[in-house]
Amino acid sequence: MGQITIKDVARRAGVSFQTVSLVLNHPEKVARTTRETIEAAMRELDFVPSLAARSLRKKPSRSIACVFSVGAQPYDDLSGMMQETYQGIVLQTFAHVADQFGYTLIHRRWRSDDPEGLGKISSLVSEARVDGIVVFADRRDDPLIAMLQAKRFPFFVFGLDVADTHYAMRAERDAMYQMVRYLAQTGSTSICFFKGERDGRRLRAVTERLRGYQDALAEAGLPLRDDLVVPCDWNSESGRRVTLGLLERQSRPDAIVAANDRVAFGVLKALHDHRVRVPEDIRVVGFDNFVQCAYTIPSLTSIEVPMLEMVRFAFSTLVDLVEGTRPADDLAQKLFPTRLVFRDSTGSVLETQPQG
Amino acid sequence: MGQITIKDVARRAGVSFQTVSLVLNHPEKVARTTRETIEAAMRELDFVPSLAARSLRKKPSRSIACVFSVGAQPYDDLSGMMQETYQGIVLQTFAHVADQFGYTLIHRRWRSDDPEGLGKISSLVSEARVDGIVVFADRRDDPLIAMLQAKRFPFFVFGLDVADTHYAMRAERDAMYQMVRYLAQTGSTSICFFKGERDGRRLRAVTERLRGYQDALAEAGLPLRDDLVVPCDWNSESGRRVTLGLLERQSRPDAIVAANDRVAFGVLKALHDHRVRVPEDIRVVGFDNFVQCAYTIPSLTSIEVPMLEMVRFAFSTLVDLVEGTRPADDLAQKLFPTRLVFRDSTGSVLETQPQG
Repeated sequence: MGQITIKDVARRAGVSFQTVSLVLNHPEKVARTTRETIEAAMRELDFVPSLAARSLRKKPSRSIACVFSVGAQPYDDLSGMMQETYQGIVLQTFAHVADQFGYTLIHRRWRSDDPEGLGKISSLVSEARVDGIVVFADRRDDPLIAMLQAKRFPFFVFGLDVADTHYAMRAERDAMYQMVRYLAQTGSTSICFFKGERDGRRLRAVTERLRGYQDALAEAGLPLRDDLVVPCDWNSESGRRVTLGLLERQSRPDAIVAANDRVAFGVLKALHDHRVRVPEDIRVVGFDNFVQCAYTIPSLTSIEVPMLEMVRFAFSTLVDLVEGTRPADDLAQKLFPTRLVFRDSTGSVLETQPQG
Repeated sequence: MGQITIKDVARRAGVSFQTVSLVLNHPEKVARTTRETIEAAMRELDFVPSLAARSLRKKPSRSIACVFSVGAQPYDDLSGMMQETYQGIVLQTFAHVADQFGYTLIHRRWRSDDPEGLGKISSLVSEARVDGIVVFADRRDDPLIAMLQAKRFPFFVFGLDVADTHYAMRAERDAMYQMVRYLAQTGSTSICFFKGERDGRRLRAVTERLRGYQDALAEAGLPLRDDLVVPCDWNSESGRRVTLGLLERQSRPDAIVAANDRVAFGVLKALHDHRVRVPEDIRVVGFDNFVQCAYTIPSLTSIEVPMLEMVRFAFSTLVDLVEGTRPADDLAQKLFPTRLVFRDSTGSVLETQPQG
């Protein structure tokens, strides 16, 4: 049997193909009972909406939009944006992969506190100016995700595991489990966990990491101490400030697991300024394995993330969805394993790669 | 008198308005003599091509493309891209400003060694999928610039001064002049200049900086020594390696002016590993004033670039051109002054801001 088209669906549901098209492109404009009839017909026929079906008279734009959900926090100063190194790297990587696929990359931010924001993204979709969207969000209940699901638009969630969506996420729990297990196995007994927050909210990735931290402590027979789980922001200044607070305590930790490399740079700075030796007095680790980790003093042990693989997975999934070679309900969901990279900030290397 | 339209131009030149439109959109498809007649009529009437005139049946896309000319060097590994922090920051800033203007930002790279690359950019233009282009190039003779000029398409050159184009560039010569003058005035006598190169080619910005370096030395009565002008790449590893070479010399410099902050991070690392004290034995300065400069050991003196102002200038110029409120021949060209930011890597501060 050939590919099921919207005309087949229309026949089955007893409606015009224009109505089927409307359900695909603007479901909110179709009466609920009609929509449900059409959706039932789609399920019965195992119908895969292709881009061509989605926008009958429009040719594919061969464009993918990266939409960053930046929360309520405005980015109105340069230094705030310069902190977003990770986002810059992600974008660079997507631009590179988009080129390889022959796609144009579109870049949008949307702020959840901007009442017109969702409408702007929605019009990108309705006007078929993009074929698919990569969503960068840190909350599963991000309204952007709900909107794209309602519109049945091809999209991919990058960095977060959201049920019933295509996604790529780092194996955050395993990464932290492996790192803390290594620290415990090599002598650290009071391991401080920097719990990254944004606008006072805990993030999904951090919940996962905390789970890995707890599991590794339990396995090593170390107590879970509330005073060793300290909130921090995601930048160097926060790392420096939180570390200064730790140094005022009577009992100092013997290891610090920073929320990312930028935070760890601030940790190293604070320790150096107070003549605390790294790794002899306190060991320090980061997360992301930025190139810069090799040049800090001392060089920084970190966790490598397979960014290029993740971006390729995201992009090729989206292209398959857009071009109709992958059914929308064949969910592509993957947790990407990370790798520990040992440098001077944790002292001599006792093993190269603990098994998780 | 109302706005001159392409119909006025057509009447003057004695051709159809479709031919005038063709000259605006596809000048290469119009016979030279006809084109010259039409261009003369445009000049006589002081005609300003608006977006509407450029693509009669298309509505404005409200999209601006950032096109990075990345030379012949492919970026096929993650670490290579991660080095491109500066590019990431520029993109972030453009995305932020595009949002403020209500424009969508499109991101393209083009490699000068890709025979189809120019055609792809050209089709973005011809199909009016973008209203304007920001070009990131490091050579004045970049073919992309010539192509956009020939097509009379609204574009802006970011970071490079190209005659007869709209551009924003850092005052590279003045920045380096001020920094080297400060170092000379505060006691350095053998100031090593790291001459950034790409693919073995010297860049326009570097030529300007070298001029500032030479002027400051001459003013201070210091000799220009070939052995103190050393080529380097734009990343930390190059900074580290070049510095190791300097340390093997019989006579070491007493100051190092790195090509950018990332290079300086590698310089600091090499000096630390060889127990050379900064700033006591060798003073070190960077360029760009990344947030990270405050957290290196010692903290890094650098040169602040008014990125947000430059991007706003570029974007508002382009929007004015696109919306027809700025005549294409009213060139917006600006060199942006930089600012020295003093930290521990140059020792105690003797003055806060030398006058240039």
